[in-house]
Parts: sequence; structure tokens; C-alpha cells
Amino acid sequence: MFNKILIANRGEIAVRIIRAARELGIATVAVYSEADRDALHVALADEAICIGPSKAADSYLNMNNILEAAVATHAQAIHPGFGFLSENSKFARLCEEMKIKFIGPSAEVMDAMGDKINARNRMRTAKVPVTPGSDGEVFTAEEALEIADRIGYPVMLKASAGGGGKGIRKVSSSEELVPAFNAATAEAKAAFGNGAMFIERMIYPARHIEVQILGDQYGHVIHLGERDCSLQRNNQKVLEESPSVGIGQTLRDKITQAAVKAAEAVKYENAGTIEFLLDEQAGNFYFMEMNTRVQVEHPVTEFVSGVDIVKEQIRIASGEALSFKQEDIHFKGHAIECRINAENPKFNFAPSPGKITNLFLPSGGVGLRVDSAMYAGYTIPPYYDSMIAKVIVYGETRFDALMKMQRALMEFDIEGVTTNIDFQLDLISDPYVIAGDYDTGFLGNVFLPEYLKNNDE
Amino acid sequence: MFNKILIANRGEIAVRIIRAARELGIATVAVYSEADRDALHVALADEAICIGPSKAADSYLNMNNILEAAVATHAQAIHPGFGFLSENSKFARLCEEMKIKFIGPSAEVMDAMGDKINARNRMRTAKVPVTPGSDGEVFTAEEALEIADRIGYPVMLKASAGGGGKGIRKVSSSEELVPAFNAATAEAKAAFGNGAMFIERMIYPARHIEVQILGDQYGHVIHLGERDCSLQRNNQKVLEESPSVGIGQTLRDKITQAAVKAAEAVKYENAGTIEFLLDEQAGNFYFMEMNTRVQVEHPVTEFVSGVDIVKEQIRIASGEALSFKQEDIHFKGHAIECRINAENPKFNFAPSPGKITNLFLPSGGVGLRVDSAMYAGYTIPPYYDSMIAKVIVYGETRFDALMKMQRALMEFDIEGVTTNIDFQLDLISDPYVIAGDYDTGFLGNVFLPEYLKNNDE
Repeated sequence: MFNKILIANRGEIAVRIIRAARELGIATVAVYSEADRDALHVALADEAICIGPSKAADSYLNMNNILEAAVATHAQAIHPGFGFLSENSKFARLCEEMKIKFIGPSAEVMDAMGDKINARNRMRTAKVPVTPGSDGEVFTAEEALEIADRIGYPVMLKASAGGGGKGIRKVSSSEELVPAFNAATAEAKAAFGNGAMFIERMIYPARHIEVQILGDQYGHVIHLGERDCSLQRNNQKVLEESPSVGIGQTLRDKITQAAVKAAEAVKYENAGTIEFLLDEQAGNFYFMEMNTRVQVEHPVTEFVSGVDIVKEQIRIASGEALSFKQEDIHFKGHAIECRINAENPKFNFAPSPGKITNLFLPSGGVGLRVDSAMYAGYTIPPYYDSMIAKVIVYGETRFDALMKMQRALMEFDIEGVTTNIDFQLDLISDPYVIAGDYDTGFLGNVFLPEYLKNNDE
Repeated sequence: MFNKILIANRGEIAVRIIRAARELGIATVAVYSEADRDALHVALADEAICIGPSKAADSYLNMNNILEAAVATHAQAIHPGFGFLSENSKFARLCEEMKIKFIGPSAEVMDAMGDKINARNRMRTAKVPVTPGSDGEVFTAEEALEIADRIGYPVMLKASAGGGGKGIRKVSSSEELVPAFNAATAEAKAAFGNGAMFIERMIYPARHIEVQILGDQYGHVIHLGERDCSLQRNNQKVLEESPSVGIGQTLRDKITQAAVKAAEAVKYENAGTIEFLLDEQAGNFYFMEMNTRVQVEHPVTEFVSGVDIVKEQIRIASGEALSFKQEDIHFKGHAIECRINAENPKFNFAPSPGKITNLFLPSGGVGLRVDSAMYAGYTIPPYYDSMIAKVIVYGETRFDALMKMQRALMEFDIEGVTTNIDFQLDLISDPYVIAGDYDTGFLGNVFLPEYLKNNDE
């Protein structure tokens, strides 16, 4: 086991990793930007090193500074958390060259799963269902039209080198396709220097179902069940739960088995997530992407499976074999996570950084967990993600869990900044959410317009 | 199920009960003394009523005022928590007369188990092992000498009407017995108007092992395993854990079965605890007493059994049958609780009330729970118990749990009052505690002198 690890992240996930490391008896090194001098992860770690100015590009994305901090503190491994450098294969390669263990999969696997066309092809070979679409890159509008007509509308055109929503178009009919393709490929060429596109049938209405995977370096791969993350706004998850209300045990077995197959196909090591879109009507599911890192919503899986995913990440990276088999995992109860953001839901979810003048975090009782990096008097800097806490509850039944979430959100008190706590309270009180009857479009298309109407000020 | 309940208590247990009720969809009424106007239980409840001046005798022990508050708010039941009126059968009877459900056992059972000689006899009849001793009250020194010589020294002389440590003597030999008896009976007569005594062989060294019981009004009794509460100072528990390291499965089965028998013998309803003293060398255990209420340390049992004891109390009181059988309870992992008190361990544990100027409660990660009624800016009043929080951790193994407790206590930060957090940190770092090798005398006789020597200021 490692003696010391560096955490290349900030906020609640950095705190989460420091806590896990400490519980394993491992010393921790925090890194921080100038804006984060007073951050909780800095206070809680055994050592802390400033790695640059406030902007993430100059600090949390500055590979050289982070690696220098690791060398200076003799850290044996780096945990990247999520976001920032967590899916950057170049950083993973640099770690490897410097004999610092990157706590995650190999750079090769990150590359293979990071390239969307490549990932689709790998999955197809492994007989994991993928969305109907092009076999590879598409360069002309004529070719695109031929494929789209074959797979059926609506389709999504996506830039092969894409990211950040650039070079993406939704196309509803043949008539729209050629102009949309020409616009998207031009946008992609301008943004990425590469106009290559691919085409997928659009799965909608759909549920976003993802499967948590753990793999060790000895080829053992297990799953920790699924999470339903369909409650999203602009592809940002808002509330996640496990298990999903949208699938029965037969479909659950199929999806989790497909995820294990997918991970085995790339000899996946460490924690990862296979995301699927589920066509609930037809009962079909399609591989969407693999996230080669820990997810924000990992705690719901920890509650229902009893496995500490972050500790397993560290154990696996240190060379330990998984200490349990698939049949040792017994799923129990129901868990729900609400993401708490410093934002104003009534004003287009505008970020609301600033000083927290008073703080009361919910706590106590059975089955409640709050992961946060806040404290009273803390100033949320404007440079980073607006998520400031995660409230996670566990109940024997889904209804129990919903009641606990309501209790927890009602006692959550933050003064000084605007948050989405009341929004989340409204969301878990919605009849459709209580019934579990929602898809990826529900929050943005059904719930939000109603919420804004009711909260017009 | 009840629509509304009143909580006749304060501090963390009042908050714990309010949270449980809210999660069950039940409205709550808090009662408070003048010193507790700004207490958390008052802020969290749906309604709150002042029941008198700061001294407990005038408020939290004032039966009339509490019952009036229940009537005025139409509360259907009263949860007494622990301490205060929780084991007062007169209060339970008054509730019954006023058709308000007392959330606990019947007044008759409280009386039967509250009288120590009566409880001993009931247990003996039920074939639950009791400490060797007198069959009933002893009135003369000669009779006492005869009994003590027969059962063997050391013995404890205890006032039959006893309480608060009055009329109790430890006697090591025949020579000491007569003068000790005469002194104790005189003390008892003065204090309680009743000089009757009883005699028990003193079990020492011993472990304090207690068994959590749940019984419903349909005669179903189950146990939720044992707790080891041997780490005590002056009979005040300091750290509790479940399971006990001091017993193997065979002895565990015997003790838990004896506890179930004990509860069945009195047709016990609601949550209760049977306390035993374990002679670890001989493998014998002896009934000590039954607590007819929820215990401070109930959360360790909740962690290892998965049962929410406070919710079960409310369900049972409302007339529901237990929704699970003994074989449905699957014990898993290890849980430890540290009681956090506002006190100065270096100054004879003198209470340290006052204003909390800054507060950071440990949170986050897997298997941590903090039950507390504190918030930043809260002033701990000097009138009540000094316990201000309970830190409870759960780990797959005992070592995991100890590491989590260390992590949690290290991040716990209270400014403005002195606490025993560092004392608890030292305690869980002691080699004997880490090994689980301790009895009821360890903390006071072995650990504390060493601690005071090392912390001499």
C-alpha cells in the first residue's frame, strides 16, 4: 500500500479522497490554486502545495506543477478525482514516466474509450449494444444522408473530435440533414481542425442508466449495480438514484452483464462507469460512453452495495486484487443523491459564488451522508464548478429514501449564497419523481417550465 | 400511525426523535425550558412550547406542564427519549389516563424492572442468570454476614430503594461487612426513609455487555445483538461498540437468548436494553438491570443491524407489529460510538458549558454519523448533561471502524468550549483499546492515570 498520495483536485471530491486515504492510513498531499488557499481540502490534508493562479488552466490543469508537487513531497500516487485531469491520458502517461502511479486506468484504455468512434467499435466487437449509426467517420453530406435514411430519424450528428457541445446537431428529417451536416462539419473544422463526423440514431425518450464497474490488474471485473441519472438539465445530472425504477431484474441483469463485458473487452483496471441510454418502451439499451474515473454520483452505489469505491480505487492502484467477487455483493435498499449547487434556479441557474455567512449541514439519524467542502465563513470562488455539496440518503425502500431526502434538505441551511436546495425540494415532491416516472427530457421539458411558472418573482 | 407526537426531551436525542418522526411523515412538538429557547430541537420541530424555567425539575421533569403542552397541541403520543421522565412510571400512567400514548413499555413493566429486587426475582424465575446474592431484602448485619460468607467476597451492599450512588458499599471481607452494612443502611434510611438492603457478589473484572431488545404488543420479541459498554468512568459510559470483542458466537447466542427470555418474561413492549456483567475468564454472565427506554448508544446497533430503533419505537407504540423476524436481522460489520462531552478531562472532567464560537462537525465518506444538537454560535447551558454529540462509525472490520473514528475525531473542531475529543482520540489509540482487551475498570484504573500523567500541564 502507498504511504502517501497526492490529490490533484479540489472541492468535495478532494475532501472525499483525503478522508478515504486517511482511513487507510495513507498520508495526503493537497494541491491548490491561489483562490483555494482557505479551502477545506487544504486544511484537511497532511501537506498542501500551491500549484498556480486561480484559473484552472494555470493550476488544476497544470500538469507540470502538479507533477513537481508530487515529486517534491515524495507522493507515490496521484488521485485525479473527476473533471480536471481525470480523463487526460497525457497526464496519465506523464505519471507513468515519472514512476508515480496514476489512480485510474491505463493511458491506453483512456485513449481507447475517450475516442467516441473507437469506443463504439470496441463495444460492437465485444457484442455490447451500441446506438445504430455510422461505422466510422463520415466526411460528406451525401454519405451522411444515406446512413441517416437507413437508421431512421431523428439522428444526432457529432464531430468525431468533438467536445463541449461543438459540432453537434440534432436532425429530424432528410430535408434537414444536408444543411445541418454542412454547418456541423464546418463548425468542427473551425473548432478542432477536423471536420470528420459520425452519426447516431437519437434515442428519445430515454433513461440514462449507468453501471459502476471495478476491475483489478489481475483481470477481475465486477459491477456494483446501476444508477439512474435521467434527471438532468442540459446534460448536467441533478439527482441520481440506485437502483433504477425504470428496469426490472431481467433487464438489470442484461445491462450490468453488458457493462462487465464492455470493461473486460478493454481489460479495464480501477473504477469506471459504462453509460447507457435505455429505450424504456422497447426495453433496448445502447452503449453511450465510458467514464474512466470516479463519478460525482458514486455515493449512491456505495450505499446500496456497501463498497467504498474510493478506497477500492486506491487499493486497486496499489496492486491489490479485488477482495470480493460478484457474488459477494448483496444489493440492499435504495439510495438517492441530490447535487447542491451555488446557483439561482430562477435566473437560468446562474452561478452564485460568494461568502457563506452561516451554515448548517443536515446530519444524524440513519442513512444520511453529506459530502461537502464547505464550512461557515468559507468563500466559494467564482472560478470552478458550482457544485458545493452532495446530499445522499439511504432507505430500505425508495419512499423511505425520499422522506429522508426531504428531511435533510429541509434542515440544510446556507446563508450568503443562493442555492438550488429549494429547487431540489420541489423536484423530490413532484408526483412524477415520486412515482419514478421520468426520462432524460422530464426535468428540462416538463418540470422546469412548471417550476419557473410557480416561482415567478 | 400518529399524526403528531410530542418529544419530552432536549439535546441530541430530541433532535434524533424529531428527525425520525419527520421521516415517517409525523408532525412534531418540541418542549423547552427557558434556557433552551435557542436550542436546535426547538428550531427543527414543527411546533415548540416552553414548559418552564431552566432547572430540569421545573421543566423537563414537570409532568403537568408537559402533559398540558401535549393536550394543547393535540399530540397523540409522547416520546420521552432517555433520562428525564423516560423511566418514570407515574408519568407513563398519567399519559395513559389522558389517552396519550407513552412511547415505551407499560407503567407496570417499568415498575417491575425499576425495582431492583423485584427485577432480580423476575429474572431468576425466567431462568435468566442473576448475580449470586440475597433472595430479597436484608434488614440485619447478621443476616447480611451469613449471606456474604456464603456467596463469597467481594460483595456489593445496595439499598433496595437506592439510586444516585447512595447506600452502596463494596465489601472485600467478612471483617469489613458488619460496619459497612450498618453505615449503608443508615445512609439509605436517611436518604430514602427505607434501610432495606440487598447483597450481590461483585463481578470484577467484568465486561458490561448489553442486549438491545424490541418487542411489540403482539408478543413478538427480537434482539438486535449486543453492545460492549465496558469503557466507563464512574459508571458513565464513554465509548461503546458492537459487536463485543469479548465474546464468541456461542456466548453471544447465549446472552442474546437470555435477553429475549428476560423481555418475554415481562411481556416487554417497545425498545429496551438488558444489561449483563460478563465474567470473561469464567464465561459466565449475570443480569444487572433492564433499561426500559432507548439508550444513548443505540446508533451502534442501528449500524450493525440496519434497523432504525427510534422509528421502530414509534411504529410499535402506534400499534404496528414488528415487520421483521429474528432471522431477518443480519448483523454485519462493526460500529463504534464516542460520546463527546463539553468537559475538561484534565480537570476531573469538570463540565465546560459556554458559547460555541466555531464548529466543524465531521461528515462525508462511508459509514460516519454524527448525532448532535449543536450549531455554530450555540451556547451550551450549564443546567443539563454535558454530552453534546455522538460520533458513530461503521466499518467492515473493527480496525476499519477505529480508523474512521480517528479520521472523524481529527476533523471535529469546536471552539469556545473544552471537550473530551482529544481524550477520545487518545483512548482509541491505546494499544489495549485497539486490541479490544479491556474491562469495566480499564478506563478509570489503567488508562486515566496514564492519560493524566501524559497531559500534566
